[in-house]
Amino acid sequence: MADEVKLYGVGGSPFVCRVKIALNLKGIKYEFVEEDLSNKSADLIKYNPVHKKVPVLVHNGTPISESLVIVEYIDDAWKGVPILPQDAYEKAQARFWAKVVDDKSLPALFKAIGSHGQEQAVAEAHEQLQFLENELEGKKFFGGDNINLVDISATFIAYWVGAAEEALGIKLVTKDKFPKIIEWSANYVNCQVVKDGLPPRENLVAFFKRRFGKA
Amino acid sequence: MADEVKLYGVGGSPFVCRVKIALNLKGIKYEFVEEDLSNKSADLIKYNPVHKKVPVLVHNGTPISESLVIVEYIDDAWKGVPILPQDAYEKAQARFWAKVVDDKSLPALFKAIGSHGQEQAVAEAHEQLQFLENELEGKKFFGGDNINLVDISATFIAYWVGAAEEALGIKLVTKDKFPKIIEWSANYVNCQVVKDGLPPRENLVAFFKRRFGKA
Repeated sequence: MADEVKLYGVGGSPFVCRVKIALNLKGIKYEFVEEDLSNKSADLIKYNPVHKKVPVLVHNGTPISESLVIVEYIDDAWKGVPILPQDAYEKAQARFWAKVVDDKSLPALFKAIGSHGQEQAVAEAHEQLQFLENELEGKKFFGGDNINLVDISATFIAYWVGAAEEALGIKLVTKDKFPKIIEWSANYVNCQVVKDGLPPRENLVAFFKRRFGKA
Repeated sequence: MADEVKLYGVGGSPFVCRVKIALNLKGIKYEFVEEDLSNKSADLIKYNPVHKKVPVLVHNGTPISESLVIVEYIDDAWKGVPILPQDAYEKAQARFWAKVVDDKSLPALFKAIGSHGQEQAVAEAHEQLQFLENELEGKKFFGGDNINLVDISATFIAYWVGAAEEALGIKLVTKDKFPKIIEWSANYVNCQVVKDGLPPRENLVAFFKRRFGKA
């Protein structure tokens, strides 16, 4: 029996895109079910009763929630290009940095964007980004020569932040302060499996204008 | 060469105890290095520059941070009693529920304790605990017949909450509302590997009185 893989999500979510990129990386065909978050489907609420959030991956009828949990599941359930390193220590490092992105980098960036680039919020985002800048030293991707869990976790930084900068006329990730992150973003977004998982940039610019733009 | 395993922590931290319990479960001998959080050691700051927090596990000189990342590392690096299921879906479920504990259950309980059992905060904690109560249906442990990552993640609920209730004269987890959680807590705390990883209960009661008790 062929695998039945469905992804419940919204096109503009960086968390949903993490899952798309992981599926692309493994070459898994899937059906994308677009959710309306203002009117969530009965399926979404049934599949993710705790959070009632996207993304949810449904694999042969079995639902899995939480983007990074799903990405690790994809790596465990399908052979092919590995998403996590095999070595126990390298694996722990990848999980650690993906958690740093979720717990530290993204909240700081959301705050900097939500405040239209308010000085203190930007300074805090820069403090967090500096850890990632250092982590990229001497590497093409967080995963080294190939993308891994950490790169996938940081998809928002590679693609969404630039759209927010354009929409709001602010600058968060500058080439002089974060040359490695800028270089990594270009390399990452240019990977075919990543590109195929991303929404059109103009949609994100329009979203950020609508949501955070000054009247 | 024998493994050199050091755990940097403080005795009263439920996050540090997660690591102790995982090490006990695998039968790994380790040296415990007690940190003074008001005067963190140079080692701690060197080993965990992003968070500067305990626990940090140092295995043959290599540091790993973040309690659940460390627990998964221990499971990957040492054979013996498994902490995560082998099946990809079961593994994802364990990771999902451990994340629910960290992202939902514990913050709600911290708030209920910090507010001395304020009605709304307790109601929110109960809403979160209900998911765990349901998850325990028909099982001795979250992991089924044996403890797994989810049980370890919920150590605070099994042991710290009761001490907080006693210290503050409040009731958070009642037998009528949460019979499965009460039963699970007793079963879990009675496992020798868990018991050996826990601080004396009177220390926790004293801590909660000092920190949150009314003058």
